[in-house]
Amino acid sequence: MSYRVGIINVTGFAGMEAARLLWNHPSARLTSATGRSLAGQLLGEAFPSLSVYGDLRVDEEITGDVDIVMSALPTAASAAACAPFVRSGIPVIDIAADFRLKDPAEFQAWFGQPHPAPDLLAGAVYGLPEINRDRIAGALLVANPGCYPAASILALAPAVACGLVEETVVVDAKSGISGAGRGTGGGYSYADVNEDVSAYKVANHNHQPEIAQELSSLGGGPAVRVTFTPHLVPMTRGIHATCYAPLRRSVTGAEVMGIYRDFYREAPFTSVSGQPPHTKHTLGSNSCLVHPVVDERNGMLVAIGVLDNLGKGAAGQAIENMNLMLGLPQVEGLSLPAVYP
Amino acid sequence: MSYRVGIINVTGFAGMEAARLLWNHPSARLTSATGRSLAGQLLGEAFPSLSVYGDLRVDEEITGDVDIVMSALPTAASAAACAPFVRSGIPVIDIAADFRLKDPAEFQAWFGQPHPAPDLLAGAVYGLPEINRDRIAGALLVANPGCYPAASILALAPAVACGLVEETVVVDAKSGISGAGRGTGGGYSYADVNEDVSAYKVANHNHQPEIAQELSSLGGGPAVRVTFTPHLVPMTRGIHATCYAPLRRSVTGAEVMGIYRDFYREAPFTSVSGQPPHTKHTLGSNSCLVHPVVDERNGMLVAIGVLDNLGKGAAGQAIENMNLMLGLPQVEGLSLPAVYP
Amino acid sequence: MSYRVGIINVTGFAGMEAARLLWNHPSARLTSATGRSLAGQLLGEAFPSLSVYGDLRVDEEITGDVDIVMSALPTAASAAACAPFVRSGIPVIDIAADFRLKDPAEFQAWFGQPHPAPDLLAGAVYGLPEINRDRIAGALLVANPGCYPAASILALAPAVACGLVEETVVVDAKSGISGAGRGTGGGYSYADVNEDVSAYKVANHNHQPEIAQELSSLGGGPAVRVTFTPHLVPMTRGIHATCYAPLRRSVTGAEVMGIYRDFYREAPFTSVSGQPPHTKHTLGSNSCLVHPVVDERNGMLVAIGVLDNLGKGAAGQAIENMNLMLGLPQVEGLSLPAVYP
Amino acid sequence: MSYRVGIINVTGFAGMEAARLLWNHPSARLTSATGRSLAGQLLGEAFPSLSVYGDLRVDEEITGDVDIVMSALPTAASAAACAPFVRSGIPVIDIAADFRLKDPAEFQAWFGQPHPAPDLLAGAVYGLPEINRDRIAGALLVANPGCYPAASILALAPAVACGLVEETVVVDAKSGISGAGRGTGGGYSYADVNEDVSAYKVANHNHQPEIAQELSSLGGGPAVRVTFTPHLVPMTRGIHATCYAPLRRSVTGAEVMGIYRDFYREAPFTSVSGQPPHTKHTLGSNSCLVHPVVDERNGMLVAIGVLDNLGKGAAGQAIENMNLMLGLPQVEGLSLPAVYP
Repeated sequence: MSYRVGIINVTGFAGMEAARLLWNHPSARLTSATGRSLAGQLLGEAFPSLSVYGDLRVDEEITGDVDIVMSALPTAASAAACAPFVRSGIPVIDIAADFRLKDPAEFQAWFGQPHPAPDLLAGAVYGLPEINRDRIAGALLVANPGCYPAASILALAPAVACGLVEETVVVDAKSGISGAGRGTGGGYSYADVNEDVSAYKVANHNHQPEIAQELSSLGGGPAVRVTFTPHLVPMTRGIHATCYAPLRRSVTGAEVMGIYRDFYREAPFTSVSGQPPHTKHTLGSNSCLVHPVVDERNGMLVAIGVLDNLGKGAAGQAIENMNLMLGLPQVEGLSLPAVYP
Repeated sequence: MSYRVGIINVTGFAGMEAARLLWNHPSARLTSATGRSLAGQLLGEAFPSLSVYGDLRVDEEITGDVDIVMSALPTAASAAACAPFVRSGIPVIDIAADFRLKDPAEFQAWFGQPHPAPDLLAGAVYGLPEINRDRIAGALLVANPGCYPAASILALAPAVACGLVEETVVVDAKSGISGAGRGTGGGYSYADVNEDVSAYKVANHNHQPEIAQELSSLGGGPAVRVTFTPHLVPMTRGIHATCYAPLRRSVTGAEVMGIYRDFYREAPFTSVSGQPPHTKHTLGSNSCLVHPVVDERNGMLVAIGVLDNLGKGAAGQAIENMNLMLGLPQVEGLSLPAVYP
Repeated sequence: MSYRVGIINVTGFAGMEAARLLWNHPSARLTSATGRSLAGQLLGEAFPSLSVYGDLRVDEEITGDVDIVMSALPTAASAAACAPFVRSGIPVIDIAADFRLKDPAEFQAWFGQPHPAPDLLAGAVYGLPEINRDRIAGALLVANPGCYPAASILALAPAVACGLVEETVVVDAKSGISGAGRGTGGGYSYADVNEDVSAYKVANHNHQPEIAQELSSLGGGPAVRVTFTPHLVPMTRGIHATCYAPLRRSVTGAEVMGIYRDFYREAPFTSVSGQPPHTKHTLGSNSCLVHPVVDERNGMLVAIGVLDNLGKGAAGQAIENMNLMLGLPQVEGLSLPAVYP
Repeated sequence: MSYRVGIINVTGFAGMEAARLLWNHPSARLTSATGRSLAGQLLGEAFPSLSVYGDLRVDEEITGDVDIVMSALPTAASAAACAPFVRSGIPVIDIAADFRLKDPAEFQAWFGQPHPAPDLLAGAVYGLPEINRDRIAGALLVANPGCYPAASILALAPAVACGLVEETVVVDAKSGISGAGRGTGGGYSYADVNEDVSAYKVANHNHQPEIAQELSSLGGGPAVRVTFTPHLVPMTRGIHATCYAPLRRSVTGAEVMGIYRDFYREAPFTSVSGQPPHTKHTLGSNSCLVHPVVDERNGMLVAIGVLDNLGKGAAGQAIENMNLMLGLPQVEGLSLPAVYP
């Protein structure tokens, strides 16, 4: 049995990565891929690294029957493209931000337009298996997490879930440039971005409410408030989220390590590391490495999460969600170790 | 008039950068440079970028008369090498960490050995002209700030000095690899470090007490407590310190911008930027760019400081201190714009 | 059926990459891995990207029965380690340079010591399937090509084999830093190597005789003479060989393209590109992309070959040779597209 | 005395670098700078690294009196902008390609349009002081060399000038991405260009006839024919030209080194290196490092030239030419060592 997968907007980095990973999947295959700017071209001509796909062409719309759809369109466009499939009963994984925020007013506030399909929000499941595995398995529409939220939530979830920390957290995140997307303008040219670190959208990035919403859903206490600063660093792939949360009680590093290890005992892709993890140890894979440290002097938890923004932060996560939605083993097609060095 | 400058340990990156900058200085010149591993070699043979120095040789010890000395030795070794000059009345700028912490017990706690010259600590001045300009001008021994502290203190000083923020701050700092020094081991090899971000010495780096001490000296309130996380990012030069401090009162971004601009009105090398600054806009220069943002949702100040870790974070700063100590114009030899791109 | 593979010196980059690729192989698995400096450690502790290997430990010597051995030891040490296996009838792939040069005097001339096992040289097969596929399939000892030679020979082979070019060729090759190996000294530190291009061993690198030997074996004419210049460029993986050979007769670009496409018609991993290929289009894969251009003004063939120095230039190539030696499909375990971007 | 300099198109990388260098010049200052896309903005707002320029605005046209003009416009547009100044007797340095090729038919062949000011070609001097110093000093219009030609010609000139090599040469050049210019499209985005080497315009780049013309003018023999391949490597600045020329006679490395050292004895910015030079040893400076090697096995000269494509390859060279044209010391304002690391 081989499921037929459609990718809407294969021409962005997340879509390309999903196509790359599907090539290695034993039970699913890419049968239709869209991308308006390149419609009509062979996928392997547009992207030589995907030349294994031979005569598969990029289309304007999904063609033929598909068993599941992934959308990597920009926000808002994605909801519009996903809705018809969901309404026809075809499972959809939305890699864009459209179905992540539960409250359509929040969507309007952060994206400056009404939500294109508010009726689908209630049924959408936030696609982070470490906290939502069973609900993903039964969902028709999964909202794939953002790359920053995936790293940040996985870094903080065990501490928040057990009430270990205060509700005021700081998330300082560093991203490789591919997080800014393909075909973007002059601000991401090599000469400008190489040998440079800079912050952007300080305390004003739309991943902030996503992190806050999901962390809040984990604890029984007050809503979590997040100060979030994203940074661009000169590498292609990788997210390093360094999270700071005041501790509610005195705790040892070993105790926190135990809490974290218990929390992720069943998670195939998230590991708790005893050392500060390196983004490079996740490159090209679906891994997330988490590392909690107790700053005893200041009563602060410092929790680090690293992943590949196109892997566990986007396309790898989407394949993992696909596996759960289709009843396949969670790890199928995703067991590749990271490319190192 | 041309002052004669001696550099102890010209063979580290900070020493090399001081030599580079001195070449362009109209009133001072490098006349003696030490470096045991390369003693006897021409400076320009050891480091081709310094071939302009012609027949200047690297010596084992400072030779000939010098008017001022800079030491870029490792911590502890540096104090021992600086002490004889100070005791002879020759002005010294210590680029190492030896004379930064006022309390010798703190030195012992962080560096694991007794301070080599505790009698000199009281007279040492912390060499950050933005907060200590007049004292530097009259000092015989200046402790040049660490690269992380320079960026962090300059980012937070205006807010701390006017009591705008609580005493519990988070400093999340990103550094280029040259901050790890020259000739270091396999952990900083290109293949390991490229395409990677990682934290190290989480909540346990010796720059933490330095930042806390200097910020505490600015405010009239309780001692500032700092949670400090340094990270390595794949670039050669640059520090990006992102600092988080809870606001004591409601304040607008414009008001904070005004406070910052006032604080640095007389500072020739620290500018307040209206946009998130880029480390690359300081490369090769003595500039520091500071950018405060108010996160109104969470009552948090996010203050960013960027600089070149070998410039305003080490050798440029040392030249600026030298100018003040010798009664030269503060900006002499340092007016070069950053190299961009 | 799952063949048991031993890797001698898994702790170098080529050994690590072979371990990574074997994890994905359906018919072979890594059962024993050596590495003296890390003996006793778990493979996944020494190298977090290989943590999938769980409780596999690095040993001092190959332990247990193995069906095939790969050696990634340094030159000379490798022959000594390989010889006992070969003599016991266990197939060996030597990733080092020990069995590549047919003439032991050449080995002595280039490596400064006598060949450790000259009796095995006659039976060793040069492991480039594009030119030696059938002989590899029947070999007990395969000399895996060097990274530079693999790219260079594949770029020039079709032209040399049909007598299209003169015997005097120039090979100008650019390599990522991982080609210099793991754990190497200060010359490959990030701060030195980033933002830098430099040549090394100009006209004096031991890959020169290897390229010359193999190209000479293809043509019926005079021995090919190679001027070879390797360069280091600031990236982790990738080889770009730009080869120049005077044309013996007037020929069009289209004609040469036809010759190249015919030559590689049956090769699963080497493709002829109509555009200048990018090393990045091969990253993490076993692909080689070749691109011939005719410089009509000067009667010169410019032939480009690109590959991942750890993939088709080392470990990927070794797996491909293993497949042939074990009678497995040539492409098994190697069909992964390149990681892009 | 301070000469007033106008820069046409300060908004490209070469124009920005000229502005940076002029800030450090004791006898010349930037008084007018144009750039249509940014006209009206403060130079320091458009480019924060140039904030030292305070209230200097980018204009649409050169304003006020200027003593000399540099143009960094694109080819063809540049000639049109330079011509009025030349015709008014104001000295002009054209950093574009417009006045480099002596034959207007060659211009037409390579740039696909008639030359905009063919009457000025005869009077234009090719601005490479190592071969044309006296003629530059007397010129009203100087054609600043291209970045690839500067490195290539300086690498080969001593050998060609003394008839040591055949007239058929190969130039294999590697460039940092800034050579592609500012504001260029998606092909130079970080995610595409990082971790990649690729060739472009193989045997078809307009710097080929420029190299051939200037080398031909040096020798008394047949016209030099050049096979030229430019490559992009993942760094911001730097050119590494590796040049191959068959030797006409047997010669030792020491003899060639002597020929090179004699040739450049009076050149303040071009040095002959006894080791393979690093592009990074020239970063931000006006240096060129040259290194000749004799491949005795094959009777081939391998000659390497490295420089900063924005320094000796563009803006630094322009300042050097300006100094000569204005009768200033050749090295004024250009004595800065390279930024290293």
